Amino acid sequence: MKVLVIGAAGMVGRRLCERLLADGGLGGRAISALTVFDVVGAGLPQGAVPVKEIAGDIADRATMARLVAPRPDLIFHLAAIVSGEAEADFDKGYRVNLDGTRHLFEEIRAQGEGYCPRVVYTSSIAVFGAPFPDVIGDDYVNAPLTSYGTQKMIGELLLNDYTRKGIFDGVGIRLPTIVVRPGKPNKAASGFFSGIIREPLAGQDAVLPVDDDVRHWVASPDAAVGFLTHAATMDLSGLGPRRCLTMPGLSVTVGEMLESLSRVAGPEVASRVRRVPDETIRGIVAGWPRNFAPDRALAAGFGADASFDDIVRAHIRDSGHAAPGQDQGQPDAAGLADGGRR
Amino acid sequence: MKVLVIGAAGMVGRRLCERLLADGGLGGRAISALTVFDVVGAGLPQGAVPVKEIAGDIADRATMARLVAPRPDLIFHLAAIVSGEAEADFDKGYRVNLDGTRHLFEEIRAQGEGYCPRVVYTSSIAVFGAPFPDVIGDDYVNAPLTSYGTQKMIGELLLNDYTRKGIFDGVGIRLPTIVVRPGKPNKAASGFFSGIIREPLAGQDAVLPVDDDVRHWVASPDAAVGFLTHAATMDLSGLGPRRCLTMPGLSVTVGEMLESLSRVAGPEVASRVRRVPDETIRGIVAGWPRNFAPDRALAAGFGADASFDDIVRAHIRDSGHAAPGQDQGQPDAAGLADGGRR
Repeated sequence: MKVLVIGAAGMVGRRLCERLLADGGLGGRAISALTVFDVVGAGLPQGAVPVKEIAGDIADRATMARLVAPRPDLIFHLAAIVSGEAEADFDKGYRVNLDGTRHLFEEIRAQGEGYCPRVVYTSSIAVFGAPFPDVIGDDYVNAPLTSYGTQKMIGELLLNDYTRKGIFDGVGIRLPTIVVRPGKPNKAASGFFSGIIREPLAGQDAVLPVDDDVRHWVASPDAAVGFLTHAATMDLSGLGPRRCLTMPGLSVTVGEMLESLSRVAGPEVASRVRRVPDETIRGIVAGWPRNFAPDRALAAGFGADASFDDIVRAHIRDSGHAAPGQDQGQPDAAGLADGGRR
Repeated sequence: MKVLVIGAAGMVGRRLCERLLADGGLGGRAISALTVFDVVGAGLPQGAVPVKEIAGDIADRATMARLVAPRPDLIFHLAAIVSGEAEADFDKGYRVNLDGTRHLFEEIRAQGEGYCPRVVYTSSIAVFGAPFPDVIGDDYVNAPLTSYGTQKMIGELLLNDYTRKGIFDGVGIRLPTIVVRPGKPNKAASGFFSGIIREPLAGQDAVLPVDDDVRHWVASPDAAVGFLTHAATMDLSGLGPRRCLTMPGLSVTVGEMLESLSRVAGPEVASRVRRVPDETIRGIVAGWPRNFAPDRALAAGFGADASFDDIVRAHIRDSGHAAPGQDQGQPDAAGLADGGRR
């Protein structure tokens, strides 16, 4: 099986590739070649599975043609300009998130009859916009309030239509906000949800710009990789024409997140969070969804993280930070054995 | 006020233009110039309002630039490849319905600061796809099952985003199926809904390819023009960021439509409908919405036709066919005085 990962240098993309290379296969099929693409090289190791890295611009049609020409059996499309940047740079957001996606889909179509790869498209809960019901069901209208959400939703509509036409076998997964993101903050307005866990664990102060009772829908990086690999291997025939699913997350308040941090890493660590209200971020976050009933995804076998405590522990494990508190953040054996997909 | 109508040669577009020219203004503002655009000339009469007709391809960016350069204050965008043709010609549908719409929006944006026209965009109930609840509310998910519906929904998303960004002041109206369409059938799969009224009234047999209990959501051509002019003049500030509304229609079964025909024009006319089931059309229509609760549109002042009997009478009036039955189809004075907007 030939696999193509578009957007391989991002946090989730890189983690997915590492998982594919570690496993050497997916759903019982060996991976014969992995091609990874992004604006920069992902720097993946060569091993049993040959890896080809290509750097370029997703909005360049010829580049997309080159990526699709070897007819990969499975294509993960994770490339995107994130919410903050797409809001600030209207042209760039549409060029990458809309035109880039459309070029990919059109190049698959240009391969012609007999080629029908599986396409796993990463969408986002940003396809929803306020006002919301308390719990957002699978039938609730997609009314995004950002250019990023608009572009992701257009990608979903295209994916459904191209799939319906038999051009590829598509599935879209709407990722919750990923917490805890490792490394530096990116340009997403949701960055503080990770910052208030990541920075204190690294011994640094973190700023919380919203109130403790702000509720949000989150999933761990490991859960995101689990969603992607499940989408790549599951039977899609039962989904019908609505191929894009809200992924199961945890609905937690900022206060509950900080309680988890205190419980897992100790109150001194949690005390490194400083409350500095920011009206702009408060306003943006007020338009975000808080809770979902992702029934279709659950029925299709997607699983959420078990608890926010587990998310904090997984970050401690991944980042190598020894927590100073009472719980040293050791994952249990089962957590390791299933590759963190919980 | 300078007005631009894109898609002026279609049935609704032409009727809108005739109305604008007859009234010479809209919402209390005089129309100083009317520019009309389509693939063919609309053949509108010159009168008190100067009319400029331009024929061309909406997907040609330079043509769009030429249309927008005079900075019209009000733009009606009705141009579209209809459902049947967009399904048959994938490229043409996306080129006209998606690229053409995007070119228009981008050329408005290219005019820069200080230019913010009102844009009235015609969408369709084809943005909804089965399965449906019995009555579809304003919060129900848009999951189109055709390329046409997909393209219309993408246009809605773009309209919302460009409006949110202050590029123009947009409003989208999801038209019900328009019944009775005058003239020849077009390529829409919904054509029989008009045919079973129009053809018998013209003394011809008509084919009904679905069962009598098939329920659908319809509005008259006059109602469609009323939706457009109301959208052009209403206060949009109360709509919030969701700028696209399901227009109020009548939810009627085919059997009820034929009863109206019999009541208004006589049973001999209604007997000209022959039941010839067509499994393909049956299957297509089974995926169409049957009934809506268009609460937002009603609150915003959009009004539906009063009854299907009135729709039949209006068609008799417009087409000049004298009905042979007991009711000669004379509209009442009020119906004439308000330009048929009921």
